[in-house]
Amino acid sequence: MSAGTALPGAPVDNARLARLFRMDSVWEQWVDTFIGTRTRHLARDLDTGEQYCSLADLATTAARHAITAANISPADIELIVMGTSTPDMLMPATVNIVADRIGINRVPTYQLQSGCSGAVQALEVAHHFLQTGAYRTALVLGGDTTAKHFDVDLDVTSMPPAQLVNLILFGDAAGAVVLGTSPDHGRAVIRRVVTRLTGLGREPGQSLEWYGLADRDSDRPPASENYKMIEESVPPMAVETLHMLLDDLGWKETDLDYLLPPQLSGRMTPRIVEALGVPSAEEVSCVTETGNTGNALPFFQIERALAEMAPGDRALGIAVESSKWIQAGYVFEAL
Amino acid sequence: MSAGTALPGAPVDNARLARLFRMDSVWEQWVDTFIGTRTRHLARDLDTGEQYCSLADLATTAARHAITAANISPADIELIVMGTSTPDMLMPATVNIVADRIGINRVPTYQLQSGCSGAVQALEVAHHFLQTGAYRTALVLGGDTTAKHFDVDLDVTSMPPAQLVNLILFGDAAGAVVLGTSPDHGRAVIRRVVTRLTGLGREPGQSLEWYGLADRDSDRPPASENYKMIEESVPPMAVETLHMLLDDLGWKETDLDYLLPPQLSGRMTPRIVEALGVPSAEEVSCVTETGNTGNALPFFQIERALAEMAPGDRALGIAVESSKWIQAGYVFEAL
Repeated sequence: MSAGTALPGAPVDNARLARLFRMDSVWEQWVDTFIGTRTRHLARDLDTGEQYCSLADLATTAARHAITAANISPADIELIVMGTSTPDMLMPATVNIVADRIGINRVPTYQLQSGCSGAVQALEVAHHFLQTGAYRTALVLGGDTTAKHFDVDLDVTSMPPAQLVNLILFGDAAGAVVLGTSPDHGRAVIRRVVTRLTGLGREPGQSLEWYGLADRDSDRPPASENYKMIEESVPPMAVETLHMLLDDLGWKETDLDYLLPPQLSGRMTPRIVEALGVPSAEEVSCVTETGNTGNALPFFQIERALAEMAPGDRALGIAVESSKWIQAGYVFEAL
Repeated sequence: MSAGTALPGAPVDNARLARLFRMDSVWEQWVDTFIGTRTRHLARDLDTGEQYCSLADLATTAARHAITAANISPADIELIVMGTSTPDMLMPATVNIVADRIGINRVPTYQLQSGCSGAVQALEVAHHFLQTGAYRTALVLGGDTTAKHFDVDLDVTSMPPAQLVNLILFGDAAGAVVLGTSPDHGRAVIRRVVTRLTGLGREPGQSLEWYGLADRDSDRPPASENYKMIEESVPPMAVETLHMLLDDLGWKETDLDYLLPPQLSGRMTPRIVEALGVPSAEEVSCVTETGNTGNALPFFQIERALAEMAPGDRALGIAVESSKWIQAGYVFEAL
């Protein structure tokens, strides 16, 4: 397994967002204290409003980095799986635009529509395809851009907190890993990937609308988030995912060297880490600098972990999709 | 394999569309002659403009029919894979809303974002997951609704043909199959599924936009179709897919009893069938009555074929995704 990532432009701090939204320093302190995310990168220019970078742009860059890190060529890739909640268009799927740019053809390509678990779902699909023996090398992609929902002319003063929080929490990014059945494709191997819906009878914690020609004038909120519900639900779901993975592998907490926890916000991630209770493992987090980049996050964490891991080290990652609640986790081991 | 399908409301004929768009009988004859699709079903009420049916509604109904036909209960389902190009929302994914309604929980769920090949991609993912031995029963879903792009107040007189044709070609529907590793789950088994991108350096034949808060006022066309390019490209791509499948299986054309060709339009499908040249196989088509229902189509064809097939009969289906060009095919055999 080898990883690559991509971020658009320079980091945007909370002071810059406060100026954009004409908020005062009290608001900025409120963001620092209760959200805890210090910077994020955005695919939209906050001065001009122009979207200067697409999800396909970011994913292409991340894919190239991962392919280089794996020391392979695009022609070696036999399968591409991508996870995103915010594709550039509905058709063509972004994964196929990325394939075209990298020069990959005549292979199956999949794009999974999913919230924060999409990257792990993509890992799982690729992992299962490799297990059938019919494929040797897969490119797994994940990313999100909030650009279509980020209006720089927005009057946020009348916006309910459930919508406003999205403009602070999220960042734009993409990530990629190359998975192979041959160990010389990287410095680590996947031991286990698991995802499962846990949404039966549970209200959505998050929603993201899209509009077509017939409903562009609709006044439905484009994106909303039940932050309280997410704050309450994610820690126990993450703990359950941890135990599900450890039980599957017959491992104990102390067998883990690295922990890649859900990256909801600078404030929420430490709470989840505390709930997970794996003190022997080193935490690998990025959310305070990148913001919640959705389906890109696990790749940033994997990239950072791979750079530190010694042969035999074991890492466990967790993501929770909070729109209709999916538990997702993965385990990899350095070679 | 057992199948189920769902269509919204009553069939809408070309005369009704002509009245809606204030077109004359010449236009109606033009549609009959050059498109050849006689009726379609729409999730939007053409009198009131109200969308009375969602993709989740249709997919839930189709799933229930397939589950009943397979003589299993929702609790037996260990995996759900759905293909669509037009989800109800970006988050939650429609597949998870359907799972909740049917009462399915604690299983992996995937929603593939794809044009007309999404149903076959969903079949392929489920088929590979079953092949790993880790899953026994999968629910595969596919469907599309054009409702968000179908504006009943639209002035079509100034609309370019590349956009207008979408309002005639497409219909709304969903379909489902249950796949199992145990032969008593239905009357047929999948022998082979294959999909592959063939879009390298090729312009998109179709595009479908979505709008967010920041770009709802954009004047980009929401949906457009290069009908000429599709007309030229799909027949040879379908022929290539046929031979790819037959070669994989070591079969000849004469080994096929049923042919489920791409369902682009009442006019285009017969041309594709002619190009495929499998006279021994009985054609199973539905497009003249249902319209092009995108990711629902293969399930309508499978359902019809299953009702006719005798034990040992072999059926081959083909779909071509024309936004960024994906060849997709599947073969199943009656038990």
